[in-house]
Amino acid sequence: MTIDAVLSANRAFYRAFATRDLDAMDRIWARRAEVACIHPGAKPILGRREVMASWRDILAAGGGPRIETRGERTLLLGAAALVLCEEVLGKGVLAASNLFVVEDGEWRLAHHQAGPVAADAPPPGPGPTLH
Amino acid sequence: MTIDAVLSANRAFYRAFATRDLDAMDRIWARRAEVACIHPGAKPILGRREVMASWRDILAAGGGPRIETRGERTLLLGAAALVLCEEVLGKGVLAASNLFVVEDGEWRLAHHQAGPVAADAPPPGPGPTLH
Repeated sequence: MTIDAVLSANRAFYRAFATRDLDAMDRIWARRAEVACIHPGAKPILGRREVMASWRDILAAGGGPRIETRGERTLLLGAAALVLCEEVLGKGVLAASNLFVVEDGEWRLAHHQAGPVAADAPPPGPGPTLH
Repeated sequence: MTIDAVLSANRAFYRAFATRDLDAMDRIWARRAEVACIHPGAKPILGRREVMASWRDILAAGGGPRIETRGERTLLLGAAALVLCEEVLGKGVLAASNLFVVEDGEWRLAHHQAGPVAADAPPPGPGPTLH
């Protein structure tokens, strides 16, 4: 499983989000691994049924700003992979962690957390180029 | 590696945080795995040196409210483990994801994200009891 495959799975997640495609969103989440999600401003949600119910509500709400992502960085952690990125929604920016695990030969999402980035947050330091 | 060991590592992280013990904080973070951190309101930080520098600043600042945690839930994901919890700081509440990996026979922190929980956030649903 390559970095490219993780980034492809991350793009599929945001494509499902942007196009409000609940079936695609369902496919990207792990089926056997335990899953969890922390939406902005919310408490942790655990369990696949509960996480998918939260996405059903979010995608059904519609009318939100277009979501774009930038600054994707990937950490390979054995059989798991973490993609960090910024989500740009209109004038707002969120920082997100997306944790993927391998199931049936593909990366599937096991956990997502997004939280607001303050308007005056400094850019992250240069840091090492990981991948 | 057991759930108890993950929760013990999670407690060690918050003990280092609460007691502003930079050496203890350093010991809890992974040494070989890539590490990252998303502090509340901030953009992602990658790289051990950069992450530890951020903790040095936070712990040196002092004077913050006492930090307590509640609602710990653990997801075992192969060689990684994710602990979700709420951080209570004075009247504020944050939702946190702490991702641990095994190194040298112990759980070490590879990633931490915390973000604010809105004052009017509903409690999470009952959900399944995972562990």
